[in-house]
Amino acid sequence: MTFLELVNKRHSERAYIENAEIDKNIFLKCLEAARLAPSACNSQPWRFIIVDNLEIKNQIAQTTTTAFLPLNHFTKQASAIVVVVNEGSNLSASVGNVVKDKDFSVMDIGIAVEHFCLQAVEEGLGTCILGWFDEKKIKQILEIPKNKRVELLITLGYPKNDKEKTRRKRKDLEQIYSYNKY
Amino acid sequence: MTFLELVNKRHSERAYIENAEIDKNIFLKCLEAARLAPSACNSQPWRFIIVDNLEIKNQIAQTTTTAFLPLNHFTKQASAIVVVVNEGSNLSASVGNVVKDKDFSVMDIGIAVEHFCLQAVEEGLGTCILGWFDEKKIKQILEIPKNKRVELLITLGYPKNDKEKTRRKRKDLEQIYSYNKY
Repeated sequence: MTFLELVNKRHSERAYIENAEIDKNIFLKCLEAARLAPSACNSQPWRFIIVDNLEIKNQIAQTTTTAFLPLNHFTKQASAIVVVVNEGSNLSASVGNVVKDKDFSVMDIGIAVEHFCLQAVEEGLGTCILGWFDEKKIKQILEIPKNKRVELLITLGYPKNDKEKTRRKRKDLEQIYSYNKY
Repeated sequence: MTFLELVNKRHSERAYIENAEIDKNIFLKCLEAARLAPSACNSQPWRFIIVDNLEIKNQIAQTTTTAFLPLNHFTKQASAIVVVVNEGSNLSASVGNVVKDKDFSVMDIGIAVEHFCLQAVEEGLGTCILGWFDEKKIKQILEIPKNKRVELLITLGYPKNDKEKTRRKRKDLEQIYSYNKY
């Protein structure tokens, strides 16, 4: 599979074969892809908590759904939910954050999470990245230190049906680039 | 090439064959990979300015180097520098940003930039992502609206020598994950 084929295959999968088991070696390959991701000043500000215990996974799934936002019921079908914690930038990157008024660790985590997901897709899994969840509850459930941020969740599972998924529309290429001038 | 092979091949390349020409079709493939990247609420908050005009490219390169931080001279060797502008989240993602106290557009841009770079590596190019530059000067040079942020630069070029590069050390796998608990 070329990289473009892999990128084309990836989409936000929201229907999984319920609780189908994922081989532990697949998690390790996804983690390895994430581990090698680049980061500002080589900070590597990420920690991945793989939640594949059925009961705990369902508790985490519950934090993605609220009465007024019942969108994320597919999270309960997922075989695992990966909880991605921001461990904070190292000293050099922190200096950069302040001087340049940016939080590089957030970008770093985006990149590492996508490495994880693309490897999962290569392994035949479906993935969905979620940014909307009850962070406080997740910290309680998984005993994450209060001063850390949970940046993203990744749902993982085998797609319910193999038929071609309708991808969400993207802007046309012409809308997103130019040469030598804005 | 498997995805893990591609990820292993990617590193921050800091020595290029000076100003070697890059075929325009390669830029298009990199842009296509970036275009298909996921983003919060499908915001797609990115714009890529490909700077391959020698004179303008050297002006941009100059913004990455200061008297007290003369680290980035390799940026002048690069064939092109891609300037990545944050176009801002769409309405749904903006609501998420406020409620969840996060800037999802920054993560989105990290992901799209990495898609761009991985495609470039597949095409035989070397890349380096830079977060340290004189943002105000870049905006002047490229006529970028003052209210937009320039998040990252990507240097692109053909690596000066093909011998195995020493990759920066990463944390061990055991340091970056756990199961079902922090």
